[in-house]
Amino acid sequence: MSLLIVGSIALDSIDTPLEKHTDMLGGSASYAAIAASFFCPVRLVGVVGTDFPKPFTELFSRFKIDTEGLKYEEGKTFRWHGKYEWDYNTRSTLSVDLNVFEKFNPVLPASYQSSPYVLLANIHPALQMNVFNQVKNPKFVVADTMDLWINIAQEDLRALLRKVDMLILNDSEAREFTKETSLIRAGRKMLGMGPQYVIIKKGEHGSLLFGDNKFFSAGAYPLEDLHDPTGAGDTFAGALMGHLAGTGGDITFEAIRKGIIYGSTLASFNVEAFSLGRLQTVTQEQISERFEKLKLYSQF
Amino acid sequence: MSLLIVGSIALDSIDTPLEKHTDMLGGSASYAAIAASFFCPVRLVGVVGTDFPKPFTELFSRFKIDTEGLKYEEGKTFRWHGKYEWDYNTRSTLSVDLNVFEKFNPVLPASYQSSPYVLLANIHPALQMNVFNQVKNPKFVVADTMDLWINIAQEDLRALLRKVDMLILNDSEAREFTKETSLIRAGRKMLGMGPQYVIIKKGEHGSLLFGDNKFFSAGAYPLEDLHDPTGAGDTFAGALMGHLAGTGGDITFEAIRKGIIYGSTLASFNVEAFSLGRLQTVTQEQISERFEKLKLYSQF
Repeated sequence: MSLLIVGSIALDSIDTPLEKHTDMLGGSASYAAIAASFFCPVRLVGVVGTDFPKPFTELFSRFKIDTEGLKYEEGKTFRWHGKYEWDYNTRSTLSVDLNVFEKFNPVLPASYQSSPYVLLANIHPALQMNVFNQVKNPKFVVADTMDLWINIAQEDLRALLRKVDMLILNDSEAREFTKETSLIRAGRKMLGMGPQYVIIKKGEHGSLLFGDNKFFSAGAYPLEDLHDPTGAGDTFAGALMGHLAGTGGDITFEAIRKGIIYGSTLASFNVEAFSLGRLQTVTQEQISERFEKLKLYSQF
Repeated sequence: MSLLIVGSIALDSIDTPLEKHTDMLGGSASYAAIAASFFCPVRLVGVVGTDFPKPFTELFSRFKIDTEGLKYEEGKTFRWHGKYEWDYNTRSTLSVDLNVFEKFNPVLPASYQSSPYVLLANIHPALQMNVFNQVKNPKFVVADTMDLWINIAQEDLRALLRKVDMLILNDSEAREFTKETSLIRAGRKMLGMGPQYVIIKKGEHGSLLFGDNKFFSAGAYPLEDLHDPTGAGDTFAGALMGHLAGTGGDITFEAIRKGIIYGSTLASFNVEAFSLGRLQTVTQEQISERFEKLKLYSQF
């Protein structure tokens, strides 16, 4: 079944201690859409400027992503410039230019309005709510968020949480949002804010799933080297939702658990190259291989 | 089969944001020995002063720990005073008094010299080597270590690593020791220093096992509250080695994997109360229950 994804589409410039790259394809929706496309048909909602490079649009087409909901506005595409320190865990934003994203008012094409699965990738929670409100009777809706919205738009975020089925955020954000030191307490506290499931992403330490009075802890794929952590979380969310939409079955704790492992798998490929470089070359066979290895690495 | 454990035996004073306790039973060997005693016969090597409280000696007896190797020296027992910040991750040492531990020169009783399993719990690596050299043809020897020895006794530690079968240390220590950011690179690099297996402990994030060209990632037991993290690592190592000695079978990657889960299980109980309070009351049934839950929490 189809998965609707709304989020940012950006031109990223990234500095790591080893390399610098400018104006690469980025944004939460770009990563999530390409990752999800390995599992299900994807409908993309977003906005870019007239400077958006043609090869990037073609990339979406190559992955059979429906771009009827992708708006081209007069002006420049959203740009982000970030820098990673030597440990790749500390990231600082050098500049942000919202450009056409500033007045983004997503309007769903008629063909998108009955999408059964919805991924509200990381953007302002009011925009996420706007899209949510345009979808008729969705089967499963997931929101990804970040520290920025916890800090400047917490009321919007809390309103959204009363509507969606699952929340995804990372460990430091979970602690900040709930004011709890223990991630276990944090996860359970967020369940009380509305969503039936909560996923806390922990980067190199994997992720935790809460819900249905159950618990699941997933390890990350063991990588010796990473080249660009940008978009790992978006890729994780995209592949996870792609798996759920692709099977089209009931949303159970077990199904989400498996989706998390696909999320970890795709994210592990994504960080091996800048931008979407690695996701453009990864094969279904390589995905299956890492999925099976993750099973092996966690069994006892 | 029997497990020989050498390490520190201390009187700990601990301040947390919520409670303060003084002169409780502590030290790496105390935690490791009590934890291991749930799985196998334990032979303890250590030193205490004449002020060592009788109830603590009786506690070792109650857990059927062989204390023939426990020396009572004229003077005071080793004392440590530590403080935890509100997140329980930041620990500072307020004072250390080595006392009788300063001149500790372990001499194994004849009955200990053929111990098949040896846990060199966290003490100076030269003392660990001293004990190692007195054991005849051990089957499996594990060394636990800490940042202090990496900083002030690295040559002794490296010499020890060429002799032992497995090294256990935590994530920040692994990074410090190997100068690697990636724990995966760090783990593999330490395999090159001698031991056949390396375990990196990650506290709330579980642990990683390297060796036999294999990899295993274990999640921690999900706890909402912890009261005193002291000795969690020693408890982990004790239960892990206790499991291996208790079954007495071949040391395989699979056996160590299972031992790690027992280590995580016992450590999860240990942090629920100060000192060895929780390990004194935990039952075999409760241990089995958490072991099974950890299996459930990691399966997909």
